[in-house]
Amino acid sequence: MNSLRINLDRLESFLTQMATIGATSKGGCNRQALTDLDRRGRDLFITWCKKIGGHARLDELGNLFVRFAGKDNGLDPIFLGSHLDTQPTGGKYDGVYGVLAALEVMYTLKENGITLAHPIDLAVWCNEEGARFSPAMAGSGVFSGQLEKQAIYHAKDLQGVSYYDALVSSQQLGELPCVAFPFFASLELHIEQGPILESTNTSIGIVTGVQGMNWYEITLEGKSVHAGPTPMHMRQDPVLGFAKLTQDIYSRVTDYGDQARVTIGTIQTEPSSPNTVPENVTFTLDLRHPDQTTLQFMSDEILSLCKTYQADLTTYVRTLWLSPAVQFSQQCIDAIQSATEQLEIDAQPIVSGAGHDSVYLSKVGPTGMIFIPCKDGLSHNEEEHAYPQWIQDGANVLLHSLLHLTTRGSQL
Amino acid sequence: MNSLRINLDRLESFLTQMATIGATSKGGCNRQALTDLDRRGRDLFITWCKKIGGHARLDELGNLFVRFAGKDNGLDPIFLGSHLDTQPTGGKYDGVYGVLAALEVMYTLKENGITLAHPIDLAVWCNEEGARFSPAMAGSGVFSGQLEKQAIYHAKDLQGVSYYDALVSSQQLGELPCVAFPFFASLELHIEQGPILESTNTSIGIVTGVQGMNWYEITLEGKSVHAGPTPMHMRQDPVLGFAKLTQDIYSRVTDYGDQARVTIGTIQTEPSSPNTVPENVTFTLDLRHPDQTTLQFMSDEILSLCKTYQADLTTYVRTLWLSPAVQFSQQCIDAIQSATEQLEIDAQPIVSGAGHDSVYLSKVGPTGMIFIPCKDGLSHNEEEHAYPQWIQDGANVLLHSLLHLTTRGSQL
Repeated sequence: MNSLRINLDRLESFLTQMATIGATSKGGCNRQALTDLDRRGRDLFITWCKKIGGHARLDELGNLFVRFAGKDNGLDPIFLGSHLDTQPTGGKYDGVYGVLAALEVMYTLKENGITLAHPIDLAVWCNEEGARFSPAMAGSGVFSGQLEKQAIYHAKDLQGVSYYDALVSSQQLGELPCVAFPFFASLELHIEQGPILESTNTSIGIVTGVQGMNWYEITLEGKSVHAGPTPMHMRQDPVLGFAKLTQDIYSRVTDYGDQARVTIGTIQTEPSSPNTVPENVTFTLDLRHPDQTTLQFMSDEILSLCKTYQADLTTYVRTLWLSPAVQFSQQCIDAIQSATEQLEIDAQPIVSGAGHDSVYLSKVGPTGMIFIPCKDGLSHNEEEHAYPQWIQDGANVLLHSLLHLTTRGSQL
Repeated sequence: MNSLRINLDRLESFLTQMATIGATSKGGCNRQALTDLDRRGRDLFITWCKKIGGHARLDELGNLFVRFAGKDNGLDPIFLGSHLDTQPTGGKYDGVYGVLAALEVMYTLKENGITLAHPIDLAVWCNEEGARFSPAMAGSGVFSGQLEKQAIYHAKDLQGVSYYDALVSSQQLGELPCVAFPFFASLELHIEQGPILESTNTSIGIVTGVQGMNWYEITLEGKSVHAGPTPMHMRQDPVLGFAKLTQDIYSRVTDYGDQARVTIGTIQTEPSSPNTVPENVTFTLDLRHPDQTTLQFMSDEILSLCKTYQADLTTYVRTLWLSPAVQFSQQCIDAIQSATEQLEIDAQPIVSGAGHDSVYLSKVGPTGMIFIPCKDGLSHNEEEHAYPQWIQDGANVLLHSLLHLTTRGSQL
């Protein structure tokens, strides 16, 4: 089995066809969770799976599992997969590549007449992106018992549509209960979504864990007055406060070194009128660090800064989400490492800067991730790109990691 | 006629009743232009006018004129009025006070058996606020030939409803063509919307003119990347650019002295997602100064700053609206001055920091404005307030300014 290789042309054809669903004018994808486009993408995927004997099941959170029988279906399944939903101006790779490379792995096994001991579930986790419904990674979060089903059901998008109603209208509400069932291991292949592998000219990142990340919503409240009459020195303008605070936040986070990250992704003024000094400015704060202690220390410092920043403004802090730093399964890391060595593909350990479904899955079973580079480190961006060689290497490493896992598994 | 005084109780009753339409929980008003609430407010006003012989007519932009006959209806009418629409979180006074005080003036004349030589039009200009449809002062702008009817008709609110469709659905589409007809003079009574009169303990502001104001929309474009993986020093983050630029803009504007104003009322990121570094930040810039040359100089400097600010960001500038500084009619200023002297009410000349329908009207006929203080200078705010004494003084000055104008008018 050492000479087994995936079919790049077929994999690229899967990617190209999937990318037509929700294609944007700038070459990206807008296929947000539980939309009609998301359903069409999943339907296309299921069609491909059925051709090689896959059996699709949905759970009550919209997680999709396509089961391929093993030699011994009494064994726990192995998960291969990721997610098919995208950001509003997302790219063609992101989680999609992980799902379709897993599909290609199954095609390669099938045409070589190989059936593994364990059954395989191609897993498509629902609302990984969190772009339409907050929080992100809703499907894997509930599956792993880390998020509450009812809270997710009641989450609403900007149009006021609830997650539950979107499940129904996109026909993704399944009958399987959304609770963790035992799995032998889970492997997720993904683009790096950062510049490190490309800049070090490395083909594969063996993901050892995931940055911890804390999400907050901060509101600075001042006084709303008409834009003309009130002299500048008599104003309590939250926009000026926001500008000063933002600079200080960036500066403090930079002090925590190269691994620290801060992102302000959304900003809103209220009332939002050109000729009114806003009453308040509300923004989201995404803080990350691979070391949990450092993350907590940094978060505490930044929140304290927000709260005490300006005497003429009132600050409100809401915690949206706390995701502690994660360490992946050594068994999975070893299998990936063995695959890269056997394939003679250059690899390096890497910490993921992005959240993934694998973070939640690692709470309930042995979990690992494989990264490939992406051009200019771009992701969540319509220009997101991965070269054919990277795509091929990643899928081959996924295939042989799976084979190493099952070989070792039989010895466990 | 020197002893003639308005009835404060009746005027306060008008204000109180009007404030129930669109009342907000925090004690303000949300009666945006061409909504059902706006229509209900206007209907109530017309009911009051009809009781003393007023005859209402609408023009094709939704401007409302209620005619009261004069002794000589061949003479050009005098406009008394302002607007009844409010900001989303507006107050109970703003333009409403000017309209209802004008109504009270007519009640006072009527019950004292006084008919002036000139006919009077109580004028309610449409969409003064510009909160629902941009630009502001749409009705008076088209009336005065400064804005184009078709452009206003096609303006859309955030829900995609056009001004024209809103005119029809709120039953405010009239048959009068919206073009300036000759008027003898126009007087607008308004709250100051700033802190100057109150802080100098002055009852009346004799408005000599209006600040010039320039509105721009600025977009800073960077690179959208995922919030986790990309190290801070490798980002092109428009939020950080916005924060730095905003501080510099405020600092530069302050250099132009006490009369200069800058307001950033709206800020939007795109895509707006907590875990994505935005591709761009778009914000509105409202710049004001009473001296037109200084305003232009300041605007040029600020725009030049925006365009050249940061090498890693691209800046786009769109001009939304330019409103040059305005000088009001000396004839009106003199009439208001005479009224305050005769009534022995303390007054001072003042420059308006806010835009008003009178700015446009001043292009097509003799126009003047009277200000009363407002508590803490607050306006466009649910806490906007004016004390009874201020309300009474302002309406009496309006009444006697009108009388002085007509007396002088017969000598012209």
